[in-house]
Amino acid sequence: MKLQEKIAITGTIIALTGLHIGGSKSSIEIGGMDNIVIKTPKGVPFIPGSSLKGKLRSLLVKKNSNSKNEHEDPVEIQKLFGYQGKNKDEAKNIQEKEPQISRLIFRDAYLNEEQFEKTFKGATLSTEFTEEKYENVIDRKSGKAQHPRQMERVPVDAIFDFEIIMDVYEGDNKEEMIELLKQAFSLLEDDYLGGNGTRGYGKVKINYTIGKPKTYKIHESSNS
Amino acid sequence: MKLQEKIAITGTIIALTGLHIGGSKSSIEIGGMDNIVIKTPKGVPFIPGSSLKGKLRSLLVKKNSNSKNEHEDPVEIQKLFGYQGKNKDEAKNIQEKEPQISRLIFRDAYLNEEQFEKTFKGATLSTEFTEEKYENVIDRKSGKAQHPRQMERVPVDAIFDFEIIMDVYEGDNKEEMIELLKQAFSLLEDDYLGGNGTRGYGKVKINYTIGKPKTYKIHESSNS
Repeated sequence: MKLQEKIAITGTIIALTGLHIGGSKSSIEIGGMDNIVIKTPKGVPFIPGSSLKGKLRSLLVKKNSNSKNEHEDPVEIQKLFGYQGKNKDEAKNIQEKEPQISRLIFRDAYLNEEQFEKTFKGATLSTEFTEEKYENVIDRKSGKAQHPRQMERVPVDAIFDFEIIMDVYEGDNKEEMIELLKQAFSLLEDDYLGGNGTRGYGKVKINYTIGKPKTYKIHESSNS
Repeated sequence: MKLQEKIAITGTIIALTGLHIGGSKSSIEIGGMDNIVIKTPKGVPFIPGSSLKGKLRSLLVKKNSNSKNEHEDPVEIQKLFGYQGKNKDEAKNIQEKEPQISRLIFRDAYLNEEQFEKTFKGATLSTEFTEEKYENVIDRKSGKAQHPRQMERVPVDAIFDFEIIMDVYEGDNKEEMIELLKQAFSLLEDDYLGGNGTRGYGKVKINYTIGKPKTYKIHESSNS
């Protein structure tokens, strides 16, 4: 397995509706928010690479196969996202045995703070970078609102900067790998990112550029 | 479960009477409004996907079944709106056990600001996009007005742009799913959206287009 080149796919993920990717509370504050979004220790919301990778993989699998588990996934998807392989006794065929190293490296995608401050100057936010949304359940019989819950969201128009690195090994079909990733982006735009996606949250627009392949030749200036 | 296609249902929701979908205050202002409507941080009212989804689901269930809870709902409705499934020991039959992934993805529907500004040029509004309505309770014995309350509403003639994505999986009855959604739209037009619907609020007209199925073929331009 010889690494031929690395290709950086960079761009922005724009929230077209409020986005909620759940985080954890490190402290309980009185009057603090429930259902918070994931943030850096400095309080900047981000889209974890794990969320983006998981979502894109599951969309591609849904679209391209009928497989019940990752062992049955198309080998092209196993290559892109990685596959550990089954042990010899359990594997039904050669493909199930063969592990695949993940060709895609996803980065955590951070909120573009500068753009955010410009866009939301004078806006009413609940915290520096988020809004609060209240929801409830309407009782079918009485029509009463019940079980109020509070959700933190990154508001519509927020922009995240993302980077994905594609490793191309000798023998890999680079064009096919890129096409598959493009298909995943298209599917995601008509799907959602994060939680509560069938209820309004997480519509995103993805703008991206596919960079020039980098081959890391020795004796070549790293600045060229 | 192989995803065959996605169909976008897009259109407008027109307020034929004042609309109130409750929001939350992030700050208490002296002289500020009570019972405010939900808005983006920039102050643009919207219809949450959660409200639209919840309302359409409950109307369809009311019309098509006698069920007391979601476990007894018709399977066609469970498919459209999603169903978590009961655990094996509690389920009474196969249908109750079987979870269903939500075929419909609702987006938050934002007020069309451009249209609003044209329509309400020179009009008397309480805030940029809303009116204020005072209500009270008339004491049955004395005829005195009591308990005055103030409601914020998006005014009649406001227009919201909406989008719903329908995921069609292999084996799904697409025509039936679309008919069910159309039935829900018709029911909603003779019902109401948001709060205080039996007291004048929330009559809506829904105009929609059912888009061409998208199959996300590889090697096809994402713009085509």
